[in-house]
Amino acid sequence: MEERSGGSDASRPRGRRPGPSTTRESILEAARQRFALDGFRGATVRAIATDAGVDPALVIQSFGSKDKLFGAVLSISFETLSEIADAFSGPAEGIGERVARTYLTIWQNEPSDAEALRAMLRSAIDNNQANAQLREFIESRVTEDVDRSARDEDAAAVRISLAASMLVGVTIGREILSVSFLADERTDTIVAMLAPALQEVLAPASHRL
Amino acid sequence: MEERSGGSDASRPRGRRPGPSTTRESILEAARQRFALDGFRGATVRAIATDAGVDPALVIQSFGSKDKLFGAVLSISFETLSEIADAFSGPAEGIGERVARTYLTIWQNEPSDAEALRAMLRSAIDNNQANAQLREFIESRVTEDVDRSARDEDAAAVRISLAASMLVGVTIGREILSVSFLADERTDTIVAMLAPALQEVLAPASHRL
Repeated sequence: MEERSGGSDASRPRGRRPGPSTTRESILEAARQRFALDGFRGATVRAIATDAGVDPALVIQSFGSKDKLFGAVLSISFETLSEIADAFSGPAEGIGERVARTYLTIWQNEPSDAEALRAMLRSAIDNNQANAQLREFIESRVTEDVDRSARDEDAAAVRISLAASMLVGVTIGREILSVSFLADERTDTIVAMLAPALQEVLAPASHRL
Repeated sequence: MEERSGGSDASRPRGRRPGPSTTRESILEAARQRFALDGFRGATVRAIATDAGVDPALVIQSFGSKDKLFGAVLSISFETLSEIADAFSGPAEGIGERVARTYLTIWQNEPSDAEALRAMLRSAIDNNQANAQLREFIESRVTEDVDRSARDEDAAAVRISLAASMLVGVTIGREILSVSFLADERTDTIVAMLAPALQEVLAPASHRL
């Protein structure tokens, strides 16, 4: 008969774990400092790797990309960043509904990501350094999305930025100001109202004629 | 031959001017404190008048309404508040274009109102007291707009709040984060992209079938 594990958890040493997670933490800490010092655009994976005392390949292996590393610094999960990117980069048909539902569902179902997004937004509005980091991150993401899909070249970056801004506004109304008409409403209702609006911005009917 | 007024301006006493503007300033100061203490909803014109030592009728005569008084406390002009209200309360046809153009034009042409709106937004995101004041102000304005137009009753308050949130988001992207794709674009281009989206939110095509 096995002994029950009972109170033995309490005797485990707390604090930093040894091994791979220490490397991960060193990279995160170096990235946090580099992004703050050089901005999102200026901070290179090479400089972050040097500061952390590791090979640049290990940074990419651990975090996937500079975008994902920035997400990790902000405590936004890899999955959440990928879901948002995928919603924007899919086919034009249904893009409004897809983007609205993906974004609002994260706010509803992923409280830790929602908290990180809220903190990012507050500090970006309040603090010039965080503001520049977020601006450069958005510009870089938008440029990447435009390269991926590429129809309607000139205006596409403006349209993606406009849609992203509208979503940020909905978050401010619903989650930060908590305007009752938005905060008390079911996510499905907001998605249904928002989807045709985002569709008009991201894939306007006039372009489909 | 009249003497030129030359340097005589410099000899005018500075500071508080006597007469009506002192009453106006007393009302404004009382309102600023009441709104902070009791919130937008809780602060009554009667309480503000009592604090300022004037008759409630004089408060209304001087500022028009509690909404306008709140605008004055925030240094947003009477004209700007009226323009925004009128854009939302007109006919369904063209409401998206009208609201988008009115709002973005204020940001472009009225730098002092834009500065006041920016300050209001920053403090509402940053500070719980300012947050509650702005939330209550928006809820009160939305309720008034719904009473005025009244088609599509239940959803109308949600739709107006959603449109207002989207506009706030555009401001964050364009004026606060200054995302280049939005900040460098002409207002007309942004209005053209935003108008059909606001139209879908405020007067959806599906309701017009």
